[in-house]
Amino acid sequence: MTTQDRARSVREAVRRTPAYPFTPIDAPIKLDQNENPYDFPPELKRLALERAAERAWNRYPDLTADTLRERIGAYEQWDPEGVLVTPGSNVIIKLLTELAGIGQTVLSAQPNFTVYTLEASMLGARSVGEPLNADFTLPEAALTARLADSGPGVFYLTQPHAPTGHSDDAAVVERLVNAAGDDWTVVIDEAYHQYSGTDYRDLVRAAPNRLSLRTFSKAWGLAGLRLGYALMDPALATHLRKLVSAFNVNTLTQAAVEVALEHPAYVAERVAEAVRERDRVIEALAAHPTWTVYPSRTNFFLVRTPNADVAYRALLTHGILVRRQDSLPGLAGCLRVGVGTPAENDAFLAAALSIQAE
Amino acid sequence: MTTQDRARSVREAVRRTPAYPFTPIDAPIKLDQNENPYDFPPELKRLALERAAERAWNRYPDLTADTLRERIGAYEQWDPEGVLVTPGSNVIIKLLTELAGIGQTVLSAQPNFTVYTLEASMLGARSVGEPLNADFTLPEAALTARLADSGPGVFYLTQPHAPTGHSDDAAVVERLVNAAGDDWTVVIDEAYHQYSGTDYRDLVRAAPNRLSLRTFSKAWGLAGLRLGYALMDPALATHLRKLVSAFNVNTLTQAAVEVALEHPAYVAERVAEAVRERDRVIEALAAHPTWTVYPSRTNFFLVRTPNADVAYRALLTHGILVRRQDSLPGLAGCLRVGVGTPAENDAFLAAALSIQAE
Repeated sequence: MTTQDRARSVREAVRRTPAYPFTPIDAPIKLDQNENPYDFPPELKRLALERAAERAWNRYPDLTADTLRERIGAYEQWDPEGVLVTPGSNVIIKLLTELAGIGQTVLSAQPNFTVYTLEASMLGARSVGEPLNADFTLPEAALTARLADSGPGVFYLTQPHAPTGHSDDAAVVERLVNAAGDDWTVVIDEAYHQYSGTDYRDLVRAAPNRLSLRTFSKAWGLAGLRLGYALMDPALATHLRKLVSAFNVNTLTQAAVEVALEHPAYVAERVAEAVRERDRVIEALAAHPTWTVYPSRTNFFLVRTPNADVAYRALLTHGILVRRQDSLPGLAGCLRVGVGTPAENDAFLAAALSIQAE
Repeated sequence: MTTQDRARSVREAVRRTPAYPFTPIDAPIKLDQNENPYDFPPELKRLALERAAERAWNRYPDLTADTLRERIGAYEQWDPEGVLVTPGSNVIIKLLTELAGIGQTVLSAQPNFTVYTLEASMLGARSVGEPLNADFTLPEAALTARLADSGPGVFYLTQPHAPTGHSDDAAVVERLVNAAGDDWTVVIDEAYHQYSGTDYRDLVRAAPNRLSLRTFSKAWGLAGLRLGYALMDPALATHLRKLVSAFNVNTLTQAAVEVALEHPAYVAERVAEAVRERDRVIEALAAHPTWTVYPSRTNFFLVRTPNADVAYRALLTHGILVRRQDSLPGLAGCLRVGVGTPAENDAFLAAALSIQAE
């Protein structure tokens, strides 16, 4: 009897999910995870570590991270009772699947952040995806039809969208959110909203079944600390909080993010640079003989190449790591490229422009 | 229409679960969470913060915390591929419910760690509990019958048991684990094993559907850092890892726990003190006019009082916070008391012995 046979209590939905094939690759220039290219400012790092040192590590953290939620509430002008914090936004996606997905539906435009459908498939939610239009805009009619006939469940709208970097017209987003009515938990994933300047808090505030998903991993540059959060109606937060593993945000992260929220000025500066750099790189890439670059409202962008494997490996020989997206529906030949420091972007551009039709 | 009515995509199983009624209470002497009464040694805290300072906070952590898993593997003499780390063991309990509980069964002796049944009930697993015997030993015959007729699913054995502090005969544990055969994912929760000196790694190693759940929150005194882990067969870890939210252990916790694992000597000293103190307090409490104290193999113990509410509040007037357990089946009148520092234990004893028949 094989080991595999003997794990027969493992649910079929998990068993048939392929293991995540992750092979970490070291490269001098990492543009593959849409990270902020700059570490937390040294003086803030020092403050954060001092605060972490003062706290008792042997005690469980504040159960619901009250101080942190109050700071986020003040920053976002949101009732702290409607703020939920978790170790990264992907944890909230799991909790949302548990809240309103299991035995129900998870609806999104495709391609999208893979965690939405991965959690759905493993936890026993029906996953429904409608393909993005060829110009990466939301398929409004198809989604509206699904909202009418496939609920209840969780409906994800990502604004700006990943992995395309596209930002939709606010009117389209608003019509879709309204079309969801009360049958859906409507999630507006705003992980990259600082780069697009979009903000759907008012739309979320208008109904108790909507939430905005945000993170400290991108514009705040704190991916290593793992802090995602969601803004919603306190009644919805009460339900979602039942599913949160107790004490889920550790003491060190709470201390560090509190410090970040007390000194947020660096964020706007970095976002402004990322936006300038993104636009510069995209403009320069327009000169590429065979690659097509797509507009973006985030800190990354898509390029379509004649052969993603060849292009990916050519960049890697120049020490530049990007993310292949060519196996996703509608993204044949595509690579996703993060915006780095000006020097990193120069290196990427030089390498990219040296790669001829392949 | 009320707010509640409008959240109708929220699954019934979550909706009917009561919100966790947590009101934090400040007291000079906290014996309510089975924490280690001592903070991380100052020199190790300094080393941990230095290591945290050196790492890039803007980058996502190592996806599967490879270095940390290797250190844990070396410490536990376990293949790192069979080590899974999460932000606290209660996250692993959620993942186990997702792995083998949803649409199947979760079996445990009752009362037990409430998270087992709470996750089962919210995620759609059938929860089956068999009451502990009156002397807090495992109900072997009843559990054996359930193992035969209620699988597949997740079977929890807590050794030593919480909230009773009882440690069962190893032969009973082994018979139950063997009775589970291949139909169950068998979880031996060993959160407190350092205090009992018990260790079920060999039993876990003997079959690919078994795992040992361990934590840095108790003997290691790092509850604030949130790190739980499980030891299992690499094939089972591959399935479970699919359910883990990516990058779930943050950079600071990884750095700090690596330092702890490089300097583990403090753990044995503290465990030895906790065991001495526990035995001292239990012996002294035997003189109480109306309370009955139960033997314990952990860093906490149960006392049965004529009226848990009166006893709890009387202790609080002396500045001592303990945990009520009197609403749990079989535990009428019971309080759970953590072992503190010698001075804290003296204060508890003086207060407890001053409380007369009430």
